[in-house]
Amino acid sequence: MTAEDAAALVEAVADFSRNELAPAAAEIDRTGRSATMHLPQLAQMGIMGLNLPEACGGIGLPATALFEAVAAIAGACGSTASMVTAHWLATDSILIGGTAEQQQRYLPAAAAGQALGAFGLTEPGAGSNPADMTTRAVREGDGYRITGTKHFISNAGEADFIVVYAKTDMAAGARGISAFVVEPKAGGVRCSAPEPTMGLRGGHVFEVSLDCVVPAENRLGEEGKGFRTALKVLDAGRLEIAACAVGIAQAALAAALDWARERKVGGEPIAHFQGLQWMLADMATDIAAARQLGLAAARKREAGERFSMEASMAKLHASEMVGRVTDKALQIHGGYGFTTALPLERYMRDCRIFRIYEGSSEIQRNIIARHLLG
Amino acid sequence: MTAEDAAALVEAVADFSRNELAPAAAEIDRTGRSATMHLPQLAQMGIMGLNLPEACGGIGLPATALFEAVAAIAGACGSTASMVTAHWLATDSILIGGTAEQQQRYLPAAAAGQALGAFGLTEPGAGSNPADMTTRAVREGDGYRITGTKHFISNAGEADFIVVYAKTDMAAGARGISAFVVEPKAGGVRCSAPEPTMGLRGGHVFEVSLDCVVPAENRLGEEGKGFRTALKVLDAGRLEIAACAVGIAQAALAAALDWARERKVGGEPIAHFQGLQWMLADMATDIAAARQLGLAAARKREAGERFSMEASMAKLHASEMVGRVTDKALQIHGGYGFTTALPLERYMRDCRIFRIYEGSSEIQRNIIARHLLG
Amino acid sequence: MTAEDAAALVEAVADFSRNELAPAAAEIDRTGRSATMHLPQLAQMGIMGLNLPEACGGIGLPATALFEAVAAIAGACGSTASMVTAHWLATDSILIGGTAEQQQRYLPAAAAGQALGAFGLTEPGAGSNPADMTTRAVREGDGYRITGTKHFISNAGEADFIVVYAKTDMAAGARGISAFVVEPKAGGVRCSAPEPTMGLRGGHVFEVSLDCVVPAENRLGEEGKGFRTALKVLDAGRLEIAACAVGIAQAALAAALDWARERKVGGEPIAHFQGLQWMLADMATDIAAARQLGLAAARKREAGERFSMEASMAKLHASEMVGRVTDKALQIHGGYGFTTALPLERYMRDCRIFRIYEGSSEIQRNIIARHLLG
Amino acid sequence: MTAEDAAALVEAVADFSRNELAPAAAEIDRTGRSATMHLPQLAQMGIMGLNLPEACGGIGLPATALFEAVAAIAGACGSTASMVTAHWLATDSILIGGTAEQQQRYLPAAAAGQALGAFGLTEPGAGSNPADMTTRAVREGDGYRITGTKHFISNAGEADFIVVYAKTDMAAGARGISAFVVEPKAGGVRCSAPEPTMGLRGGHVFEVSLDCVVPAENRLGEEGKGFRTALKVLDAGRLEIAACAVGIAQAALAAALDWARERKVGGEPIAHFQGLQWMLADMATDIAAARQLGLAAARKREAGERFSMEASMAKLHASEMVGRVTDKALQIHGGYGFTTALPLERYMRDCRIFRIYEGSSEIQRNIIARHLLG
Repeated sequence: MTAEDAAALVEAVADFSRNELAPAAAEIDRTGRSATMHLPQLAQMGIMGLNLPEACGGIGLPATALFEAVAAIAGACGSTASMVTAHWLATDSILIGGTAEQQQRYLPAAAAGQALGAFGLTEPGAGSNPADMTTRAVREGDGYRITGTKHFISNAGEADFIVVYAKTDMAAGARGISAFVVEPKAGGVRCSAPEPTMGLRGGHVFEVSLDCVVPAENRLGEEGKGFRTALKVLDAGRLEIAACAVGIAQAALAAALDWARERKVGGEPIAHFQGLQWMLADMATDIAAARQLGLAAARKREAGERFSMEASMAKLHASEMVGRVTDKALQIHGGYGFTTALPLERYMRDCRIFRIYEGSSEIQRNIIARHLLG
Repeated sequence: MTAEDAAALVEAVADFSRNELAPAAAEIDRTGRSATMHLPQLAQMGIMGLNLPEACGGIGLPATALFEAVAAIAGACGSTASMVTAHWLATDSILIGGTAEQQQRYLPAAAAGQALGAFGLTEPGAGSNPADMTTRAVREGDGYRITGTKHFISNAGEADFIVVYAKTDMAAGARGISAFVVEPKAGGVRCSAPEPTMGLRGGHVFEVSLDCVVPAENRLGEEGKGFRTALKVLDAGRLEIAACAVGIAQAALAAALDWARERKVGGEPIAHFQGLQWMLADMATDIAAARQLGLAAARKREAGERFSMEASMAKLHASEMVGRVTDKALQIHGGYGFTTALPLERYMRDCRIFRIYEGSSEIQRNIIARHLLG
Repeated sequence: MTAEDAAALVEAVADFSRNELAPAAAEIDRTGRSATMHLPQLAQMGIMGLNLPEACGGIGLPATALFEAVAAIAGACGSTASMVTAHWLATDSILIGGTAEQQQRYLPAAAAGQALGAFGLTEPGAGSNPADMTTRAVREGDGYRITGTKHFISNAGEADFIVVYAKTDMAAGARGISAFVVEPKAGGVRCSAPEPTMGLRGGHVFEVSLDCVVPAENRLGEEGKGFRTALKVLDAGRLEIAACAVGIAQAALAAALDWARERKVGGEPIAHFQGLQWMLADMATDIAAARQLGLAAARKREAGERFSMEASMAKLHASEMVGRVTDKALQIHGGYGFTTALPLERYMRDCRIFRIYEGSSEIQRNIIARHLLG
Repeated sequence: MTAEDAAALVEAVADFSRNELAPAAAEIDRTGRSATMHLPQLAQMGIMGLNLPEACGGIGLPATALFEAVAAIAGACGSTASMVTAHWLATDSILIGGTAEQQQRYLPAAAAGQALGAFGLTEPGAGSNPADMTTRAVREGDGYRITGTKHFISNAGEADFIVVYAKTDMAAGARGISAFVVEPKAGGVRCSAPEPTMGLRGGHVFEVSLDCVVPAENRLGEEGKGFRTALKVLDAGRLEIAACAVGIAQAALAAALDWARERKVGGEPIAHFQGLQWMLADMATDIAAARQLGLAAARKREAGERFSMEASMAKLHASEMVGRVTDKALQIHGGYGFTTALPLERYMRDCRIFRIYEGSSEIQRNIIARHLLG
C-alpha cells in the first residue's frame, strides 16, 4: 500500500468516525448498549481487518497509519475502538500463532466482520505472570478439553470465536501455555452478563467459564508456543491502546480549544487567560510527545522488528498522558464538564482502563526495566 | 461543647455514616436517587444543624470536629455529604447575613431537618466575578421581584428555601448584591430536572429560573451586603469541601490497604511489592497533609478569625489531593477497580467536582495569589 | 516554658537568623567555609541547646516552637541549620540513650556550644538496614575497641565528640548495635577532608575511619540498645529536616514574591500575570501543607508520644515540597535565578540532600508503608 | 549527505565527545574555565560548522542527525554544547538573515572554528516581547551607531563577532528591529566578567555594553527584518536545547543504570528493587518521548518547513523532562549523587537553564497556545 493510499484510508476512517461513530457515542455510554451495533458499517469500511494482510482478507494498513486510524476511532467512540482492537487481538493471535491453513480458515471472515473475535488470556486469580495461569487444556480423544475461567474478556459474550490461552503442560510454566480457537456456539462456554464498568460501557467485558472440548486442529501452532504468541500479540495490542489514548486526548483537547474560544467570563473568552493557555499548551505538547512515541514504535513494527519495549513505553506514556489531558480538558469546562451533556467526563471515564488492561502501568514499568537492565 | 463531647459526637456521626450511609451509597449512585432519602435519619442525628450554634437550634460543633464529621459522612456517601453541606451553605447565609429575627424564623427548622435549604449564587453566564451576576431584585410593592437564572444549584428542586443572591443595584457591581430567602412553594421558581453528572449522582443539582416576588423581610440584612455574606459563607463551604475530599480519600486509602493485604498475585499479597507500598505511603502522606491543612484552617475558624486564604488553600490542596489518591486507589485494584462492583470508580467520579465548585482550583489560586501579593 | 516565651524565643532566633546568618550565607556557600564560624553567636543565643531540657543545660523549647526556630535558621543559612541539627542528633542520642550521669557529663557543654557533636550512624556499604552495619565494638580491657568506617558524617572533622553506633554483637542484627561517645582528641579517629557537595557547602560532611579504644563508661545505656536509640533520634532528626525544608521554601517564596512585585516586563510587574500568580499560589499552599504536617508531628512529640510515622511523613512531604518550591522560585526569576548573585540556585542546591539523608524519600515510604500495613 | 554518512558522522561526534569532552567536564565545571578550550579539536571535527551548508563551509548535517550530534556533545559536557550552540545561533543569524555576500564573508571562518560567534538578542529589562528592546542602531555617516546593553550573552567575551539585534526604528515595535554583525575588536564593546552561574559554568555568559559604530554592510539584510530572522534562528536554537536536554538526560540515565547494577545494599544490587526499577523505566520512557518529539520537529526542519510550534514543544517538553530525569538519577545515587565526585549533581545544575533561556517554559507555553488558538 502506498503512503498516499494509507493516508487516504486513514482520512476515510476519520470521516466515518466523526460522522457515524461520534454521534452515537453518548447514547452507547448512557445505555451501555454494545458497540457491536456498529459492526455492519465497520465491516463495510474494512475496519475489522485493518490489521491483517491482504492475503488474509485484510487491508494491510501499515502500522503507522494503523496507529492514526485507531486514534481516530477512539477519539469518536472509545467503546467501539475497544471492541475493534479486542477483535484484532484475536485475529493477531491467529495471524502470529496459527498455521497458514488456520489463518485462511478464520481470518477472512473475521476481517470481513462476519465473525467477531475475543482474546482470552486474563484470569481472575492471575497477575502479570502467565506462569500463574490455571486454565488447562487436556488431551481428550482427538481434541482437548479446556477448563477454567477467564476474566475481563472483551467481546466474549458476543464473539464467534475466542482465542483461549490455556496450559497444556501444568508443570512447564509459561512454556506450557498453548493457544486455542474456541467457538462458543459449539457449547461449553458460559459468559457472564457484561460487567458494569466506569467507562467504555459499550465495549463489553465478560467473565468466561470454560468447560469445552475443541478439536486439535483448533490449537494455534504447536503446544507450548502460546506464550510467545501472546507476547507478540500484546506488543501490537499495547500500541493500539497508545493510539486509543492519543485519539481520546486529541478529542478532549479539541473540545477544550473550542470551549476556550467560545466560553466567555465577564465578556471575555476564557482563551484569553494565561493560566488557561498554559494548560492548553501543556495538553497539546503532552499529546504530541505521546503520538511521536507511538509512531516511533509503529515504524519499528512496520519494519518487521521486535518492538516490545517500544510498545510498553508507548502504552505507559500515552495511557498516563490521556489521564492528565482529559482531566485538564474537563477542568477547563468547569461545572459543564462534570455533566453528561458534554463528552469530557466520558473521555475521563473511558480512558481510565488504559492504564490497567493489557498490562497495567506498573507491569509496563517492570517490562521496560527488564529491557533496560538487560 | 467540651472536646470530649465533640469527639464523641464525631464518633457517632462516623458510626452512623458507616452503618447507614455507606451501605446505600452504591445504589444512590447507580439509580441517581436523591440523597435526601437519608433526611429523616440525618435530622435525628442532628446533622442538618451541626454547623449552627445551639441558640439557633443547632449542635454548635467546633469547626475542627465539624471537619472530621464532614469527612466521615463524605467517606461513606459523597452525595449525602454534598446535599448536607449545600444545606449548610443556605443556613450559614442566614446565620451570617441575617438578623436575629431571621435566624430564629428559619434556622431551628432547618437545623432540625424539617426545612431543606439551597444556596443560589452561581449563574450560567458568570464566572468567578460576582460583579457579572445578572439576577436582579427590584422593589415591587412591599417586597422585591427577583428575576434571573441560577445554575448548578444543589438541593434546589427539593428545597424548602433557597438563599438567592441578586443585584438590588445593577450599577454597583459586587456592592449591589443582596441576599434573599426565596420559598419555592410561594411560586415563581422553576427548577429543571436534576442535571445528569459524572458523580455525586444523588446530590442533585438544578437550573433554577426565578420570576418571583418576596417580601422585604426575606432580605437578609441590608441591601448591598450580600456579597460580603457570600464570601464568608464560601469560606466555610470551601473548608467543608476540603473535609469531603479528605473523607473520600481516606475511604479510598482504606479500601486500597485492604485490597493490598488480601489480593494475591502468584500466591503473594500485592502489599509485599515495593512499588505498591510506595503508592500507599504517598497516598497516606498526601491525605495527612491535606487533613492538617484543613484542621489548621478550622482552628482559625474556631477562634473566630477570618480564614479566607486558609480555606482557599485547604480546598485547593485537598481537592487536588483526592484526585491523586482516588486515582491511585483505583489503580491498585487493577481491573476490579474499573468495575462498579467496587466503590473506587465512584470515589473518582464523586470527587472530580471538588476541584470545580465553590470556586475552581484556578479561582482558588487567584484568591491565594491576591492574599500573597497583598 | 510558656507559649509566649516560646514564641518570643522563636522570634529572637528568626531575627538573629535574618541579621547574622543570612548575610553570610552566600559567602559560606561560595568558599565552602564551615558554618561552625557561627558557633560563638549560636552558643550565645542558646541555639546549640534548643533541643535539650533545662535540666541538661538546654532551653527546653517545645517541639512546635523548635520546628519554627529550625525553619528560621535554615531559611537564612542551610549550612548552619545542617550543622546545628547534626549536633542535636548527637546530643539527642545522649539524652535518649544515655544515663543521667552521661547526660550531665556531656550535655551541658554541648548545649552551651562548648563541645560540638557529630552523629556517626551511616556507613558506606550499608543501605537503610542497620543489620548491615559493619563497624564493630569489641571488648578490650576496661573498654571497647571500635573499628570501622562511617560515611557522610556531618560535623565529624570539627567535632569534640561523635556518637558512634557500632555492633557489640555481630550475630544479633539490629539488636546487636550499641552507641558510644567517641572523643576524637583521644586518638584513633581519622577524618577525611570535607567532601565536596552540591549544596550545604558549609555544613561539612566527612568520612570517618575508626580504630580507637573508648572506656566502657562511654557506652550509652546498655549493650544492644543502640538501634532503639537511633530510631528515636532519627524521629527527631527527620522532623528537623522537615523544618529545614519549610524554612528554605519559605525563603524562596519570599524572594519570588518580592521579585514578582518588582520585576517588570513591558512596564508591567510580572506579578500581574495569571500563570505566575498560580505558581505563587501553589508554592504557598504547598508550604502551608508541609508546615502543618510538620507541626502536627511536633505536637505529638511535644505530648511525649511516639511520632515515627508522623516524622517520616513530615520529612517525606516537606523534602519533596521544597524541591518543587525552590525550583518554581528560581524559574520565576528567569535567567537571574540561575546566577549566584541571587540565593535561588543555592536554595535548590542546599535542599536537594533533604530527600536523601537520614533516610531517603524511598526509605521513608518503606517506613510509612510498614506502619500502614501493620 | 547520505543517511549512512550522517550516521557515521554522528557516531564520530559521539566518540569524540566520550573520549575528549567528557573527561574534562568536571574540571571545567569546578574551575569555571571556558569551554572554548576545546575549540581547536571541535574545529578539527567540523563541529563549529555542523549546522551550516557545505556552500558556506559547513558540514550540512541533516537536522535529525544534528539533533543526535548535539545530544552526544551535551551528554559529555553541557558547557561545550552551550558554547557551540550559541555560536550556531550567530551563524544561523547570518545564514538566515544575511546576503550571499555576507554569508561568504563570515561563515566559512566561523564554520572552521577560526571565528567564534555570539548571539546578542536578550536585554536586561526586556521580557519575551522584542518590542520592548531598547538597544538602538542609528545611522551615523556610512554606518550605524549601536548603543545599548545586552544580557546573558553566551560567548560574548571571547567572540570574534556578535550578531546584535537593535532597533533601527524605535516606533515600529518588532518590525523596527534589524540585525548587525558587531566585531568587538573594532572597539565600542564592553563585556562584563563571566557571570557566575549555577551550572554550565564553562559556557560563559556576559553582559555586553555597546556603544560602537558599524559599517552599513554589517547590517544583515534589510532594515526591519531582524525580528523575522531572530524568530527563525530561535526555532533552530530551541530544537538544539531540546537535543542538549535529551543528551544530558541520557547520560544521567546511563549513570543510574550502571549504579543500580553495581551498588549493593544488604548484598543485593539495588537494581533488584521494584520501586527503583519503576524510576528507571519512567526515566527511559520520558527520554524516549522527548527524543521522538525532537526528532519529529527535526524532520520538519529537514524538509524545509516551518517548525516553530514543534520547536517550542520540543524545547518545553525536553527541558522539563531533563529536570525530572536528572533529579531521579541523582536520587538513585543517594548521598553519593550529592557529591561532586560524580556527575549527577552537575547534570542537574547544567540542565536547569534549559527551562529558562531562549524563551522560558512559560514563554514556550504562550507561543504554543498562540499556535493552537490561531
